[in-house]
Amino acid sequence: MLSFLELLDRATARWRKVPGPGRVLLVGAGPGSPDLLTVRAVAALQAADVVVHDQLVPGDIVALAPARARRIDVGKRKGRHSATQAEINALIVSQARAGRIVVRLKAGDPGVFGRVGEEIAALTDAGVAFEVIPGITAAVAAAADAGVPLTLRGVAPTVTFISAHGADGSSARGWSGLASEGGTLAIYMGKSAGALVRDRLVATGMDLATPVIAVENAGREQRRIIAGHVADLPSISERSDLDGPVVILAGPAMAVAEPRALSHQTAA
Amino acid sequence: MLSFLELLDRATARWRKVPGPGRVLLVGAGPGSPDLLTVRAVAALQAADVVVHDQLVPGDIVALAPARARRIDVGKRKGRHSATQAEINALIVSQARAGRIVVRLKAGDPGVFGRVGEEIAALTDAGVAFEVIPGITAAVAAAADAGVPLTLRGVAPTVTFISAHGADGSSARGWSGLASEGGTLAIYMGKSAGALVRDRLVATGMDLATPVIAVENAGREQRRIIAGHVADLPSISERSDLDGPVVILAGPAMAVAEPRALSHQTAA
Repeated sequence: MLSFLELLDRATARWRKVPGPGRVLLVGAGPGSPDLLTVRAVAALQAADVVVHDQLVPGDIVALAPARARRIDVGKRKGRHSATQAEINALIVSQARAGRIVVRLKAGDPGVFGRVGEEIAALTDAGVAFEVIPGITAAVAAAADAGVPLTLRGVAPTVTFISAHGADGSSARGWSGLASEGGTLAIYMGKSAGALVRDRLVATGMDLATPVIAVENAGREQRRIIAGHVADLPSISERSDLDGPVVILAGPAMAVAEPRALSHQTAA
Repeated sequence: MLSFLELLDRATARWRKVPGPGRVLLVGAGPGSPDLLTVRAVAALQAADVVVHDQLVPGDIVALAPARARRIDVGKRKGRHSATQAEINALIVSQARAGRIVVRLKAGDPGVFGRVGEEIAALTDAGVAFEVIPGITAAVAAAADAGVPLTLRGVAPTVTFISAHGADGSSARGWSGLASEGGTLAIYMGKSAGALVRDRLVATGMDLATPVIAVENAGREQRRIIAGHVADLPSISERSDLDGPVVILAGPAMAVAEPRALSHQTAA
């Protein structure tokens, strides 16, 4: 039996053995539970001299870094930006150039709606060494919580991740043709835009009766699972009791979920 | 600072505190490196009485289970099935009914091309309690390895996962309309079907010059990253030196990757 500490030591040795100047580890913090971090992400945090994190990352994940590590909150909350992307880019470059191991901690996976592209570009332009450490993205955690598959043989040949907020105001971009042939859609940041998401799903060919699973706080202890249909999306947006992030999973593969989510919930 | 062992103990307590009959933990083993398991997945393995695993899962991950745990290889290799899906379903149900903690270990994430839907259906029908523990899926690991984002603001509003093998022979299903509007496509099991994948990408609207990153053995020490274009996919299939699993990432967001993948490689 390989011991857990051996595994952690082996992962940590990755960065300690690299000589020379600082580097940036772009780390996926996963959906929020500390035990949904990868071992490699935990090792990165424990090797950190500096942790640069968003406010979506819970405190008990940031707490995995050593006490001596400097913590910098560049918190982006909905509707508020305490640091611009350009400021974050400049910060991680300058910290790495000072010879430090910089952990840039992002909710979920850095490559999925995490703006890691901008940071990679800045690091590459500056000649700063970096590594991306993947994380569990919210849609994957939501499906696990609900006990449903994202792809399903003979039913859902694909899964597509899309954000309800879209990018830079052109938020309808990416939606056309998405719902064809039974594929599952995983809609990030879907809570606030239920009616809009419903209309887009219908426009792309989904039926109002297509099954939907909405998961609030996916991957966390306090997650809630709501099973319904595309027609129900506006009423989910109107619920004042949902204040955590919501991922919406839509498509025929979710049809297996309504009874199973319940049996799963009561079994757990 | 939260200690790593406290984190592991907390995760392990999840299953030990549940009284009564056995259960099945459907666990994502991630792309192959033990340190890309989540802490929760390691805790599940360490709590296992029985581990039922595919042959794609490396031995040093299975080795995280205690020595007393029974290991059952239901290996599915390409072109060979040593156990049918129905046999696997019956096995995990009967082992759980015997009061055991059964870890069903699947490469990547159970919900993404992992056939977890069939196993969830069997467990639900049998009234066996289960829990899905998510894992890092190959496309996410491949993007991290290559240092590229899967979505990119203003360029790639979506990412879609699809298998080059398709399901049940109807393997063209799911491809229509996929490449619209700059979204990234992540093609699993893409190595053997390069010319077919090229033709499908072109049919769905991609240009032959669209950038592509192919990653062999994503998430493992020996991973290899090949940057090219849609037109190059047949030649990747013809390479006899690629014998590990290959994920193909295609779309304009990969354009940032060619120089960066190289600088990342030399920096690591």
